[in-house]
Amino acid sequence: MSRSLRVAVLGGGSWGTSVAALAARNTPTLIWARDSATADDINNNHRNSRYLGDTPLPDALRATSDVAELADFADVLAVGIPSHAMRETLGRIADELRPWVPAISLAKGLEPGTRRRPTEVIADCLPGHPVGLLAGPNIAGEIAEGKAAAAVIATKDERVATALQPLFTSKVFRVYRNDDVLGCELGGILKNIVAIASGMAEGLDVGDNTRAMVLSRGLAEMTRLGEAMGANPRSFAGLTGMGDLIATCTSPRSRNRRLGELLAQGKTTTEAVEALGQVAEGAKTAPTVLELATEFGVRMPIAETVAAVVMGQMTPADAYRGLRQVTPGTETDMG
Amino acid sequence: MSRSLRVAVLGGGSWGTSVAALAARNTPTLIWARDSATADDINNNHRNSRYLGDTPLPDALRATSDVAELADFADVLAVGIPSHAMRETLGRIADELRPWVPAISLAKGLEPGTRRRPTEVIADCLPGHPVGLLAGPNIAGEIAEGKAAAAVIATKDERVATALQPLFTSKVFRVYRNDDVLGCELGGILKNIVAIASGMAEGLDVGDNTRAMVLSRGLAEMTRLGEAMGANPRSFAGLTGMGDLIATCTSPRSRNRRLGELLAQGKTTTEAVEALGQVAEGAKTAPTVLELATEFGVRMPIAETVAAVVMGQMTPADAYRGLRQVTPGTETDMG
Repeated sequence: MSRSLRVAVLGGGSWGTSVAALAARNTPTLIWARDSATADDINNNHRNSRYLGDTPLPDALRATSDVAELADFADVLAVGIPSHAMRETLGRIADELRPWVPAISLAKGLEPGTRRRPTEVIADCLPGHPVGLLAGPNIAGEIAEGKAAAAVIATKDERVATALQPLFTSKVFRVYRNDDVLGCELGGILKNIVAIASGMAEGLDVGDNTRAMVLSRGLAEMTRLGEAMGANPRSFAGLTGMGDLIATCTSPRSRNRRLGELLAQGKTTTEAVEALGQVAEGAKTAPTVLELATEFGVRMPIAETVAAVVMGQMTPADAYRGLRQVTPGTETDMG
Repeated sequence: MSRSLRVAVLGGGSWGTSVAALAARNTPTLIWARDSATADDINNNHRNSRYLGDTPLPDALRATSDVAELADFADVLAVGIPSHAMRETLGRIADELRPWVPAISLAKGLEPGTRRRPTEVIADCLPGHPVGLLAGPNIAGEIAEGKAAAAVIATKDERVATALQPLFTSKVFRVYRNDDVLGCELGGILKNIVAIASGMAEGLDVGDNTRAMVLSRGLAEMTRLGEAMGANPRSFAGLTGMGDLIATCTSPRSRNRRLGELLAQGKTTTEAVEALGQVAEGAKTAPTVLELATEFGVRMPIAETVAAVVMGQMTPADAYRGLRQVTPGTETDMG
């Protein structure tokens, strides 16, 4: 690089902070947190105690709660805002950004009401900016602790991806490129729903065989919807599909899986979300994904079941009874 | 069914016994155990204490240690003998079986020396018999305990599969059909190697992200070899591929995963196999699969690494350092 690209991360949650910590080891990095106490914690204590506990952050990482300061700093913008709040937050920064700054989504949900994916919301709010995303099997806490992982930067423009790749790469964090933005983004969004089903399986102690079956069938229905929408089915077999699905469904640190466990223990969705203290995108996404499934004529029995449980129309125990009751035929007909 | 088909299970290990217990709930079933103490235990105590602890077996399940008795009983033969001993054991029964009896493999390894798959060994030993296999995400202990799961019967002949399906099906055990015998069989064989890698990851505490990456890359290399050998790549995304891979890699009850954990703790392969007290097919299979990979010109970095560790040429810690050190490019080039 002729000169270093400054990375601005919008959002001080666990994943935004983890990505900022990766970038800060390579290049000047500033993170915006809505809450000034979080910004102070990062600047003074090199911690984000609220979201990442005692994990130390790089000294070089700076934080602000002033969006204008973040916008002024940005050569590259990473957007770590949950889907439901992304449009409002981007609205506050849009006029302040230099127009050629690429914007990379870190979010994994659909916007309620509009059913827009994060990169679509970014394109709406920041017209003309190159848009992409960073995704993969990345449990935030592990990344912040420096454990090894791999991820994908997906953009339509190969040159943008190639320029961004080194900003987030480290000896233990490998970043690959993929030009299938739709497929990579859908993987991250849809796996959260399967993770809730997997968490319910855990909570009900239905066993490792059934969990493996739910993941297989879950990946199959994710791929079906993706193909119908025009994504490359191969992306669902990669890091942002199967990789992210496995990490999210098997890690005890996954919020969506944890949500499923709490539902299995008899908590309502509201109670479970409160107990988590963080956003679990899958709960909001499940009903929205069913609208997409209807629009594209795809059967998604696991998403249907998760949506019914999340909306309080079915108990997790009934859900698992239902998932088993399909008349077996050939494997390709499998619901 | 006009009359019930009698199921004969050859082999009294954990998986053979679990399958026999499934069949015994539907149809007259006899199991052969090499060890007469195991046969007595099943007949008198309705237990297989050696392999399945205290789990109760159906009263209707009968056992013998006389192969001739088993052969005489068989309308259908299920072969639950580890790959390295299958040829010798089938040799003892071949002349006694009625010639039209279908033989279904329950094994998941390659024959050392010949590199033959279990269905090929069966075809060698029982020429003219319809051959197939039963596979899927099926941790034996869970099946015996009556936990829900799904599996696939793979045969070239759809009529055979359709006749066999109800013999093994229960309310909590669904059996699908698939005509890709090669793909379904390779899935079960190759996943044991990835399970050893996953167990090493567990033992080294490298984190859920890295484990998810290993599983994704593992499934990719399994699929590459399968396609090169003429299998349907879709089978690897199904129950006998991804499904079995996830169950085996994430269940603490998986022997191959457990073997990887023991290796990570510094045990030699011999010590680890001894500590397990059961066959872990992956240890024998890894070097054999590399020969296939060379023959078909496919790169299999995970199998290479596992083979090197199993043969004592590399430590698990070095193996994980190596698996991370690949220069990232596009996701499809990923090693």
